[in-house]
Amino acid sequence: MEIMADPVALLKELIRIPSVSADSNRREDARKTAVFIESKLIELGAETKLVENEKKGLNPLLLGKLGNDPNKFTVAIYSHYDVQPALKSDGWNTEPFEPVEKDGYLYGRGASDDKGPIAATLTAIEEFVAMGEAPVNFRFIYEGEEESGSGGFEETLSKHADFLGKLDRIMILDTAWFSDDAPGMDYGFRGLAYMGIEIQGPEKDIHSGLAGGIIREPMTDLVKILAQLHDANHKVAILGFYDDVVAVTPEEEKFYENLEFDIEKFKEANGLPALLSNDKKTILMDNWRNPCLSIHGIEGAFYEPGAKTVIPGKVIGKVSMRLVPNQDPVKIANLFSKHVEDLFERLNSPNRLVVHTYGTGDWWYGDPNSFLYDKARKILKEYWGTEPTLTRSGGSIPIIPFMEKLFDAPAIAIGIGQNSDGAHSQNERIRIKNIIGAKEVLKMYFNELAKESK
Amino acid sequence: MEIMADPVALLKELIRIPSVSADSNRREDARKTAVFIESKLIELGAETKLVENEKKGLNPLLLGKLGNDPNKFTVAIYSHYDVQPALKSDGWNTEPFEPVEKDGYLYGRGASDDKGPIAATLTAIEEFVAMGEAPVNFRFIYEGEEESGSGGFEETLSKHADFLGKLDRIMILDTAWFSDDAPGMDYGFRGLAYMGIEIQGPEKDIHSGLAGGIIREPMTDLVKILAQLHDANHKVAILGFYDDVVAVTPEEEKFYENLEFDIEKFKEANGLPALLSNDKKTILMDNWRNPCLSIHGIEGAFYEPGAKTVIPGKVIGKVSMRLVPNQDPVKIANLFSKHVEDLFERLNSPNRLVVHTYGTGDWWYGDPNSFLYDKARKILKEYWGTEPTLTRSGGSIPIIPFMEKLFDAPAIAIGIGQNSDGAHSQNERIRIKNIIGAKEVLKMYFNELAKESK
Repeated sequence: MEIMADPVALLKELIRIPSVSADSNRREDARKTAVFIESKLIELGAETKLVENEKKGLNPLLLGKLGNDPNKFTVAIYSHYDVQPALKSDGWNTEPFEPVEKDGYLYGRGASDDKGPIAATLTAIEEFVAMGEAPVNFRFIYEGEEESGSGGFEETLSKHADFLGKLDRIMILDTAWFSDDAPGMDYGFRGLAYMGIEIQGPEKDIHSGLAGGIIREPMTDLVKILAQLHDANHKVAILGFYDDVVAVTPEEEKFYENLEFDIEKFKEANGLPALLSNDKKTILMDNWRNPCLSIHGIEGAFYEPGAKTVIPGKVIGKVSMRLVPNQDPVKIANLFSKHVEDLFERLNSPNRLVVHTYGTGDWWYGDPNSFLYDKARKILKEYWGTEPTLTRSGGSIPIIPFMEKLFDAPAIAIGIGQNSDGAHSQNERIRIKNIIGAKEVLKMYFNELAKESK
Repeated sequence: MEIMADPVALLKELIRIPSVSADSNRREDARKTAVFIESKLIELGAETKLVENEKKGLNPLLLGKLGNDPNKFTVAIYSHYDVQPALKSDGWNTEPFEPVEKDGYLYGRGASDDKGPIAATLTAIEEFVAMGEAPVNFRFIYEGEEESGSGGFEETLSKHADFLGKLDRIMILDTAWFSDDAPGMDYGFRGLAYMGIEIQGPEKDIHSGLAGGIIREPMTDLVKILAQLHDANHKVAILGFYDDVVAVTPEEEKFYENLEFDIEKFKEANGLPALLSNDKKTILMDNWRNPCLSIHGIEGAFYEPGAKTVIPGKVIGKVSMRLVPNQDPVKIANLFSKHVEDLFERLNSPNRLVVHTYGTGDWWYGDPNSFLYDKARKILKEYWGTEPTLTRSGGSIPIIPFMEKLFDAPAIAIGIGQNSDGAHSQNERIRIKNIIGAKEVLKMYFNELAKESK
């Protein structure tokens, strides 16, 4: 068997394959990434199954199993091999798909989200295999569409769940530490509803000299709608949007107050000159347990530098909402559509409106006092010498609640990279210490889990 | 001398060089185009001067002169060798920079705007040269930045105007027929002010899971501003915007009433399902002699297909206004900036606003009863067998009023392609009949101009 003890070397190989799931031109690269990981699993002795996505044209799901000892716990590890889009012209200092080591960090798209965790997992298990015995049975669930809303994941995994068999534990390796200084774990994520507001006027783009002043431009309608998604207080203006948000308990309030969170450091690390609030509790609650709405951009309009006098014929506003307990993403998507349709009707425009739901995903709320979290807390403190921080997250991993239900097994999310890694941004990176630490922590944690009486 | 009697073959060569002025990566292609045309002028016996643009980094201006007979009129011909941006993924049926002949048309970016006219001019003059004598002295002014607001044109031409010497007439070959069936000439263009509304929040793009709900997103501010540029009646909402627009006279009204204009055909030809008005006069006035405002797009936001949960750190809304007699473009740009600054202030946002003026250009109004137009009317009717249509245009060629003043010579704009050519759109084309016709008409017109007693 080829030895691949170095997680950094493996991560570099993974970064070099641009497995951008949002770009259909990268389908072959995504498959190449899955096949590459599959070959590594096979080297470890795993039985694998690269299954086609049930949603036509989307990236395949890679499943694997290693170990079948009925006296051992069976732990499934979930990560995703796809990455966010990245172009050097977005503002990267280096080529996004060419890994670069600098000052103790490895830069490259996917370094932290989510190829680093895959590299750490594979090299950790390699060492068990080299020693001749693993403390638990492993199951692998490697997804290729996470960054594009996990399209087809639920259908595809449901169809092939039998291959994995019964699971006892699910480990989510797709998160980062809350801070840069202490290890971290998440026990909650927000849900998501990603919407598209499509407005079609002219059949194709038209010169503004030719049609400017005599047509109702789709962009004009679109910005009028987008401008009415938040009210003057920056709250989401959709009727009924907040109805199902659970009320805060005094205990929960106290938790935020006790949590260490340096506002100025957070702002600096993320390049945020200003936040909507300067109160720690408000900031954490607004990011973790309150819903919000973001306008990401517009497809179909002029986006390049410079000046172009074009009237776009069809534009699609891209909007997402982050959702929290107990909002129902499908209900929210419907409220959104209704709101947009009402706004559009009031515009009295001759253009055509279509509201798209690109995807919805459930929020997740785990139990931070369970055996899984207790043991992880102990191991993380042992390795890093620092008490780990347990937090929720403003992001979304809706497939966690889905897998918990599908396999009737509890999940845990252990952070791998740091807060300032810039997942989804320019110059994504991971600290090399974290990649090596992740490998060690995983080995220790699997050994620890094995001590639990089955 | 190499014979290049075929304007279509020459046009194909021109289309193949992607001289997109809006794209700084195409600078070399733009220069290649200028050098190629220069070599053709030199083959004709012209003295040429490829002069660097006074605005650093912009495309050069190509000047040429052929003939110095003091008993002949000196006619300057203006066209531009740069083209609009074009990507196959914008919705082209064929590669934009690979000319394709189909059903009597030649498809390709720049076919009609404005490489077709250049090809017709060079081959027309080639025939005079082959015959041994030209009826007039020629001057050539070939610009490389027209599609990007003619940056540096005025400074550069002013600096090198002496090279061209005294001019008697200026011919603008950068327009198309008003209809597809009758030859056409323009005697008026709107002016332009192209603006950018830049809003900066986070220093770089940030994941909406990480910051959604706790920051004021630049896109949210931008759409609220863009939504307040038109009022509920779709009029421009900028205070003082209409103040200097000249009133309509009864004669002018009558002209629009008498003009042949098939609304349904216009809509169909341009893929416009609906216009703001169904009244011919209103439509023509709103396109030609009333100002308007268009929102072209947003730089910096997510624009690709699919879903990306990114909060853009800096966005720039691109807006242009088409202006008419007697609006002052600089005054209007200032009114726009003031309006946007006022709107932004009311938003009470922590983000940073900068309003950019990308460029301004004067409107032009020529004299449709002059000698220049009378002779052209006669020639066009003679060649095409149809009375030409004299119209204004909703587009902008601000360098016409500039050149008229600089050389103290009247200008005329003779249309070359057809109305449905799709300049600035996907699948730009020119009818092959029009390219060949343009060559013949130009020869006839130069001969006609020579008859005028100097």
